[in-house]
Amino acid sequence: MAIRKVVERQTGVALWRQIADRIRLAISNGDYDAAGMVPPETVLAGEFGVNRHTVRSALAALAEEGLVRAVQGRGTMIERKERVSYPISRRTRFSQGLGRQVKEIGTRLLGHAELRAFGEIATSLGIAPGEPVIELRTVSSGDGRPLSVSSSYYPAARFPRMAEEFEQLHSVTKAFAAHGLDDYVRVSTEIVARHADGDELSKLKLSAGAIVLETHSINADLDGKPVEYSRSCFAADRMKLKIET
Amino acid sequence: MAIRKVVERQTGVALWRQIADRIRLAISNGDYDAAGMVPPETVLAGEFGVNRHTVRSALAALAEEGLVRAVQGRGTMIERKERVSYPISRRTRFSQGLGRQVKEIGTRLLGHAELRAFGEIATSLGIAPGEPVIELRTVSSGDGRPLSVSSSYYPAARFPRMAEEFEQLHSVTKAFAAHGLDDYVRVSTEIVARHADGDELSKLKLSAGAIVLETHSINADLDGKPVEYSRSCFAADRMKLKIET
Repeated sequence: MAIRKVVERQTGVALWRQIADRIRLAISNGDYDAAGMVPPETVLAGEFGVNRHTVRSALAALAEEGLVRAVQGRGTMIERKERVSYPISRRTRFSQGLGRQVKEIGTRLLGHAELRAFGEIATSLGIAPGEPVIELRTVSSGDGRPLSVSSSYYPAARFPRMAEEFEQLHSVTKAFAAHGLDDYVRVSTEIVARHADGDELSKLKLSAGAIVLETHSINADLDGKPVEYSRSCFAADRMKLKIET
Repeated sequence: MAIRKVVERQTGVALWRQIADRIRLAISNGDYDAAGMVPPETVLAGEFGVNRHTVRSALAALAEEGLVRAVQGRGTMIERKERVSYPISRRTRFSQGLGRQVKEIGTRLLGHAELRAFGEIATSLGIAPGEPVIELRTVSSGDGRPLSVSSSYYPAARFPRMAEEFEQLHSVTKAFAAHGLDDYVRVSTEIVARHADGDELSKLKLSAGAIVLETHSINADLDGKPVEYSRSCFAADRMKLKIET
């Protein structure tokens, strides 16, 4: 898809931010793949009809996000252009799914709690409103770069030691196994996209205006009984979702 | 998920635009569901620590998108809070999928062309680079509101009259049937989220900074041979994707 080079004024988004968004889009479209570099500042300034100072501010914002890197005497290199692809299927497991795309996957527990489930949490888990659930709040990274933040809910009656087991084993699959559940499947996933809120910006190390892909997913045991309901926010610039049907 | 009320300065995004994004998020989170109204301007101004003029600009932008509506003497009503849910499965058909959520679905042909396929288009359709494909560019609406823009590609050797049949029948399924293909299935869908470009903003009637969910999908006949490759952009504020696995 072609990128419109014209920037719009008086939209409430500063010129340098609009240009940063357009360069980000061009990188993700692969427009600069042949060179592996962003075009020179003077070229970009000409294309967008702005001065070099504005282009430099845009590139500085993208450098802060880790998308590009200024190389002395050479210009601005693209640091990585490929989003990590996360396959969603009946057999979805986060860490296995990313496979060889990232060398090291880390999921860190930010906090946990025991809550009473209401609304979407109770409905998704198929339990009565007010029943207790264990909540795990986690952030997952690939090679040190934050990819997603999640809040996951487990029926406390069936998985009472979920938080402790996860803290020890660093794996939901293993924490389930410790409760005698050896297998589970993904039954549904809902996907929306929206702007990140302040908390997500900070946990995912994103800059203002960044986008998240939010998923609401249900995993069930082999009898179809829900065992986990998760809300995850993926940094949209770093991840794509792939569905095989 | 709680919304951080603090707005950030010097981020390249105007205060009123940041506040518009936060109100949009609160609406989609259902925070104002009980009242069906956005809180009064003075309350919002206090919460965000800005003046009423800034809040008014934010609400005016949301009104232009059709998300809220000012009602004389009453305040600002939420026009619609539910995204249309588009189910993605092996049996995905766009218009059937939306079902009873919208009364009238219209898909309008913006243009068509015969092209030689290269890169992702050829690979996805399983044809040799340089082979001819028919491209259909369409925009789909639900009850008059634009939901998505798409570019779809069909092997010209197998479906030579795709553009003419679609123009007459207003349906891809029927245009396939006119070529003797009675059934087909969705085999894969890739999903990313990004900022809309200028062309998408205008076709989807969105304002600057808006987000699209972009899908790349492959449909195949019952022997597994690809019959369609589509790139679609869904207005992220109006649609969600639902996957059953």
